[in-house]
Formats: sequence, structure tokens, C-alpha cells
Amino acid sequence: MKIIRNLQEMQQTSQKLKLEGKTIGFVPTMGYLHEGHMSLVKNARNENDIVVVSIFVNPLQFGPNEDFESYPRDFERDEKMAKENGVDIIFYPSSEEMYPNELTVQAVALRRTDVLCGKSRVGHFDGVVTVLTKLFHLVMPNKAYFGMKDAQQVAIVEGLIQDFNFPIELVRVETVREHDGLAKSSRNVYLTEKERKEAPQLYKALQLGKKLIEEGERNPNTVVDAVRRHIEQHTSGTIDYVEIYSYPQLTPLTELNGHVILAIAVKFSKARLIDNMTFTV
Amino acid sequence: MKIIRNLQEMQQTSQKLKLEGKTIGFVPTMGYLHEGHMSLVKNARNENDIVVVSIFVNPLQFGPNEDFESYPRDFERDEKMAKENGVDIIFYPSSEEMYPNELTVQAVALRRTDVLCGKSRVGHFDGVVTVLTKLFHLVMPNKAYFGMKDAQQVAIVEGLIQDFNFPIELVRVETVREHDGLAKSSRNVYLTEKERKEAPQLYKALQLGKKLIEEGERNPNTVVDAVRRHIEQHTSGTIDYVEIYSYPQLTPLTELNGHVILAIAVKFSKARLIDNMTFTV
Repeated sequence: MKIIRNLQEMQQTSQKLKLEGKTIGFVPTMGYLHEGHMSLVKNARNENDIVVVSIFVNPLQFGPNEDFESYPRDFERDEKMAKENGVDIIFYPSSEEMYPNELTVQAVALRRTDVLCGKSRVGHFDGVVTVLTKLFHLVMPNKAYFGMKDAQQVAIVEGLIQDFNFPIELVRVETVREHDGLAKSSRNVYLTEKERKEAPQLYKALQLGKKLIEEGERNPNTVVDAVRRHIEQHTSGTIDYVEIYSYPQLTPLTELNGHVILAIAVKFSKARLIDNMTFTV
Repeated sequence: MKIIRNLQEMQQTSQKLKLEGKTIGFVPTMGYLHEGHMSLVKNARNENDIVVVSIFVNPLQFGPNEDFESYPRDFERDEKMAKENGVDIIFYPSSEEMYPNELTVQAVALRRTDVLCGKSRVGHFDGVVTVLTKLFHLVMPNKAYFGMKDAQQVAIVEGLIQDFNFPIELVRVETVREHDGLAKSSRNVYLTEKERKEAPQLYKALQLGKKLIEEGERNPNTVVDAVRRHIEQHTSGTIDYVEIYSYPQLTPLTELNGHVILAIAVKFSKARLIDNMTFTV
């Protein structure tokens, strides 16, 4: 496994690989890798000649009051995990090389941003689409892998790839779950023992919502109410949101039809958990 | 010469060419080709295996009160001229294919915009960097050719390529001039006979400014004043601006040094002419 820190070296390496006819699968991350990332790596490994994982904590996507400085970093552990999972190249650039000067041009997310988690993170997705534009040009992947755990990010990246005509296929990878249905997350360790037992009810609530729709319910409010009630009755968490939108457009629906997302965020004492389901009505 | 209208066909054609090891030189235009464009094509022809010219009147870079509808178009003439000058591919997409839906993501020019001609064209360069981002992904050039006649556009595109890490080399092509020094422009035909005789004085004024600096003048105001005086004394035009900035940063200078641009815009009765010189102090 190769570790590349220099931008030009990364781009030249990819250019060479492409000229040799190799396909590149790309998993962009902020490091501190976990099983969710490894699920993306496994998918990339199956479908490409070369797998590149980038590790870059992107300052541009953190707000002034967010945790850029304290965001967890452990490169040695990441390196080991990547190697064990068959990654070919870790691209690990510095902020100084990624942002050597004040930007003269930026990418801006115009839509799909002001709902779900994006509502409270103004400018966050501008930082995401800008760094991805840079990374896509440096890594030149054929396919890029994103986890559906962050379904809003996936929706925005789909827009980025389509609107900018990137020659890249986005691959949506299903959320990895514990045996009891809880979506895997680094934050699960912050749950108390009691909360950990309640947490699978989030997935149960999503399944309940899906079942209602499958049985014919077409009013989004009825579904949202039932999901909220389930969470309130079966957990001690506080609901941040329960929302239904078209997917990937993320626009409100008065009547359920087409491809939709049901998404929830629930605050526990020391962890805020998110989960979602997308399906076709 | 091939004419490609479909986006996917363009991208696949370029991908195939790249896999064959061919280099692509790209000249993006809005059509109504003239000698200035052909100078870009000649440079591209000399330095690449394949020359692609795009013809697309980009609605996104026109303001609500600008001349998008009336912008001159003559595809047959363009086709003939491109063929005669050794172009391999004309990429001629429709607005419907370039902008099938409202954009979810856009590129935005944050700097270098609010001086020179950009001052009065709010949002213009956002449209330019967005369409170029799309075209670069569709045509996948090794080199892209831009004329220094529009030096501000060149400065902004340099920022775009650097900040987004496009694997593309920008080639600045010198302004093509008439024998008397007047910068070639489609608008020159709108000059009256008298104005046409005066117009070379714009280039003379730039040369005068350059000479002053070469002789040791370091105060930008002194240079600007001398250039203004020359234009006022030798033409019947009305000065829109005479400005000096660092180049390509386009930031004001209190003392002249480094790479600079001296740029002018002068209104005649039916034509507004622009010209500039860049040089190292």
C-alpha cells in the first residue's frame, strides 16, 4: 500500500493508472476509519483495479463553532485498517497543500441543503462540494463510494456529479448495521447501557414508517406522526427531526410517491444518532 | 471534422482518445468565430494531437439586461472556419442538455471579479467558471486556450484551474492585432471612419504606459494619468476605465512591482473597445 501526500504525485499517479487502462475506485474520508468506511472499501475493492482512500479533515466544511480542531485523528490506526482491507493508495494531503492561498473560486451547493442535518450547518455542504471537486480532480476515479448513512450528503454529491458532468459514477452503499439493527457509528460508544438497548428502536421506527406506506398510507404527516410516537414511546431520546422528502431532490411532498427518504435524528444524553431509509412508493 | 452535440458522446469520445494516449487541446467559444479564435486554434493545433472547439452561448453568464437572445450566431460559417483551420471536433451542445434542470451546485468566482469589465457584470464570472467546469469535464483537455484580450477572464480561469486542481494546463495566447496595432475585435466594424483612425491610439497609450514604467516610474497613478491623457488627446472616445493591477491576482498596487496588467476600456459612438498589456516590472 502506497501513501501519497503530495497533490501532484497523486494526480500523476492516477493519470498513469488511467493510461494503463486501470479503473480507480475512490473512498473519500476524514479518517478515523471504522466499519462503515470499510464497507465502502469492500465495495470499491470488488469493482475496481485500484482502490484509493483519501484521509483529509477538510477545514472548509466545519463552521466556526464546530469541532475542526478536536475532530478525532489517528493515522497509524487508519493506515493499518486500510492495509488490512486491501486499499492500494492512501491519499493523505495537508491543509497547506489543499488550500495554499485564499480560494478564488468555490463550489456552492444551491439546493438539497436546508433540510435534515444541513438545516443547522450553514455552508457545510459548500465545503463538501468544493473539497470533493478538488479530490475528484486529483484522484480521477471511475467510481466514488458514499454511505447512505449520510443520505443528504449522497444526494448533494449526486447533484454535484450530474451538474458538473464529472465522468464519475457515484455508488450508494447501504448503511452497515449491528445485529439488532442499530446503524453503526463511532458515536454509539457514547450511549449509556440503557440508551444502547433503546437505540435499535430508531431502526424499528423507520421500518414501521415504511410498513405504513407499503400498506397504502400516502399522507407524509401520518407517517411522520407514527414514527415520532414510536420513538417517544420506546426511547428516552429527544427527537431532533423526523422528516420525509423526495429523494435525492429532498423536496417536501404533500402526497407520498416516487422515490422517498424517511430520515430521523434523535438526541441521547451524550450522542446524537441519525438514521434513514430510502424506498420507492 | 466531427460535430458532436450529445454530452455523453463528447465525454466518451474524449475518454477513448485519452486511453489511446492522445493529447487534447481545447478552445472554448461562444461561436461567431473570428481571427482571435483562430489564433487560439492555431496554438492548439501546434501543441496537441486533437483540437476541440466548443460553441455554446452560455445563458448562465449573461445578466438579465444583457444580450443573450441577440448574441450573434452563425453555425455554418463557424463550421467552415473551424474546418479550414484544422479543428478535429466541434462540440456544439444545446442549452437543454447543458442545463436540463435547475442547478443544485454551481461554481462561484470569489475574487478577481469586481475590477475592470467585471465591475459592471455581477454574476457574469460565476456563469463562466460554472460552464467551464462542465466543459472541462466533458472535453477532458490536456491544455485549454484563452486569449489575453480578455485578461480578466484568463486570470479567473487560472484561479479556477489552480483552486479546483484541474489536470489542465492553461495557455495564454497573445492578443491578435491589426497592422496599426488595434486589437482585433468583431466590434471594430462598428467604428466610424474617423474613430477607426483614432483607435490604434489605445495601443499607443498602453505602450506609453509601459515605457514610463520601464523608465523607472513606480507610482501607478502617474502611469494611469499619462495613459488617460494620451487617450483624451488623441481620440474622441470616452474613457470607461484605465486601471493597473497585479496580475493575475487583480489586486490594487500602491507601488508597481512584480507582474502587472495595464488595462483600458474606451467607448466610441457605437463600439466599446478594450485592450491591455501585461508585463513584469
